[in-house]
Amino acid sequence: MRPQEDGSARQRQPGASGRPRDGGSKLLERKTTLAAIAAAAGVSLPTVSKVVNGRPDVAAETRARVERLLDEYNYARPGPRRQRRGGLIDLVLAGLDSPWAVEILRGVEEWGAAHETGVAVSSVRHGSARPASWTSTVASHDSSGVILVTSRLTDEQLVQLRSAAIPLVVVDPANAPPPDIPSVGATNWAGGIAATEHLLGLGHRRIGVISGPGDMLCSLARIDGYRSALDRAGVEYDPSIVRYGDFHHEGGFARAVELLDRPDPPTAIFAGSDQQAFGVYEAARLRGMRVPQDLSVVGFDDLPVTRWASPPMTSIRQPLADMGSVAAQMLGDLIEGKPLRSTRVELSTELMVRESTAVPGRPVK
Amino acid sequence: MRPQEDGSARQRQPGASGRPRDGGSKLLERKTTLAAIAAAAGVSLPTVSKVVNGRPDVAAETRARVERLLDEYNYARPGPRRQRRGGLIDLVLAGLDSPWAVEILRGVEEWGAAHETGVAVSSVRHGSARPASWTSTVASHDSSGVILVTSRLTDEQLVQLRSAAIPLVVVDPANAPPPDIPSVGATNWAGGIAATEHLLGLGHRRIGVISGPGDMLCSLARIDGYRSALDRAGVEYDPSIVRYGDFHHEGGFARAVELLDRPDPPTAIFAGSDQQAFGVYEAARLRGMRVPQDLSVVGFDDLPVTRWASPPMTSIRQPLADMGSVAAQMLGDLIEGKPLRSTRVELSTELMVRESTAVPGRPVK
Repeated sequence: MRPQEDGSARQRQPGASGRPRDGGSKLLERKTTLAAIAAAAGVSLPTVSKVVNGRPDVAAETRARVERLLDEYNYARPGPRRQRRGGLIDLVLAGLDSPWAVEILRGVEEWGAAHETGVAVSSVRHGSARPASWTSTVASHDSSGVILVTSRLTDEQLVQLRSAAIPLVVVDPANAPPPDIPSVGATNWAGGIAATEHLLGLGHRRIGVISGPGDMLCSLARIDGYRSALDRAGVEYDPSIVRYGDFHHEGGFARAVELLDRPDPPTAIFAGSDQQAFGVYEAARLRGMRVPQDLSVVGFDDLPVTRWASPPMTSIRQPLADMGSVAAQMLGDLIEGKPLRSTRVELSTELMVRESTAVPGRPVK
Repeated sequence: MRPQEDGSARQRQPGASGRPRDGGSKLLERKTTLAAIAAAAGVSLPTVSKVVNGRPDVAAETRARVERLLDEYNYARPGPRRQRRGGLIDLVLAGLDSPWAVEILRGVEEWGAAHETGVAVSSVRHGSARPASWTSTVASHDSSGVILVTSRLTDEQLVQLRSAAIPLVVVDPANAPPPDIPSVGATNWAGGIAATEHLLGLGHRRIGVISGPGDMLCSLARIDGYRSALDRAGVEYDPSIVRYGDFHHEGGFARAVELLDRPDPPTAIFAGSDQQAFGVYEAARLRGMRVPQDLSVVGFDDLPVTRWASPPMTSIRQPLADMGSVAAQMLGDLIEGKPLRSTRVELSTELMVRESTAVPGRPVK
């Protein structure tokens, strides 16, 4: 039922710069070429079509063999899809339960509205869930390109990314993907410095950290920024008050309880996500401590909910909506065949001071 | 460049039940019909096409005249789009800054994934923003149907809804749209009862309310539920501690300050949204009151952030993701031409007890 069930229909259409061609005979010629390639590769015509269309369900070795032959036969590969049918890009999110997903969506949608481009949103599914991969989700409708939002790009996703034949940009607020994949992130190290210098400036000397998971680059970058700021201020780094969390409320709560129950608890905690910082608030409440009078707290992300926190939360802003817009702009350039100025863009983080931070051990009012 | 720039291309295609027709002459016949209608209506052919295609930029009077003529000429209107091209529905949200938007999206996306249907997400824009209306957003790509999520259906939107020629379902967690528009909501009155009975059961007799805006049905339904529960418990209704808010943090905060500053403050506050309940938390903190020891608080919506609140918030759950799935299922039925069992579905609310409610005036630990 769908168009483009075989490779022939995905061939480049004459663009503004090309003269119209004799569609019928050209089409036949291309079909013949694909059949010849199938024969040479020892595979079926549908398999060749799959490779041409960037479908994932082809063995890597077969794909390589067919692609080599496509090059040898000088077969015109699908050009930028904009020329065929436009108006729709895909935003694939690691999950729709994260509050930053909607922030990134907001930026992508804004770009889409300004460029008369629809934004199809879907979520990566794991395990036995259907569809098995985001690539098949995207294949179910016509997409000009894909923005993948993740906080942990898996090897499997990487393979899918590389085999997909459509323009692709990754937004990853946590890790930088391999340099050959266009991506947008934020300046995590600078964020670690800003949070720590803010607390040092208020007079804190014993500053705990609950970073993200220990195997994520952003966690390391934020801790390195923290450490660097301590160094510059001549404050000794104490690894016993530096913890790795899980980005979630629960991890922030559990690690904060550990820190506050120490004989030498910190007077301030820098949390690697707002969700973790909410966990720190709860740990403080259960220990009878007031924020910020007894404990200063800095979050990371600056989600809208930081303004609802009681007290309103000081946080390091990741410009998530802007990251979405920039990714969409990069994707738009790729779709139109324009070269990217840079394959990795990092937008700057920013300290947003609210009421969860104060001079240590002195009531504020 | 886009297909369907004129009415002719949107005519019903022969479905499974119809015999294929002589496309060429039929098409010509239809074009002639449209031209005749244009002449009879005293408007241009493009204007007639706009009406056929459900575009909003036609004066109401002109639209009515053309529609009357389309009926007279027995012109076959566009049928379910599924028959033309499938795999994509539109989710149009009142805004992407509301945390419940992503909850509804989650439900719609889940249905879409299970039914191999893409979900294009866009936001209604106001003022001079482009595109001027959600209908033009949707027109920019091929959509089988639309789910409109709003907390306040405007007259303008109503006109657009009725003139749109594609299947449509409204999700409105706040107001019930007119009965002829298929819609999904939640049981607000029952939610008001559940919140109030929970607080009465704990021993509260002086229970304040900060509902939504006074001109929204859901606000009235929740207050009526509250009042009904008081009646049944033999507790007198005191309008001086019943306020209308704005669903936002700010409104909840301002109304809570008013209530807490009264000579006879309530011992518990039922807030018409979680965001407002966060505002109540903040008002209590600034007055030196602890939640729940000095003030019990119940929210409404049960957004994921209620679990991050400190203390975790008791709230009335609106099953927003389920509302999204049900709306998508209704839309799917409409697209396939199946009759709906009911044009209005209300999913039940549910009390989620957490730690922001306790026996009045007695410390809990």
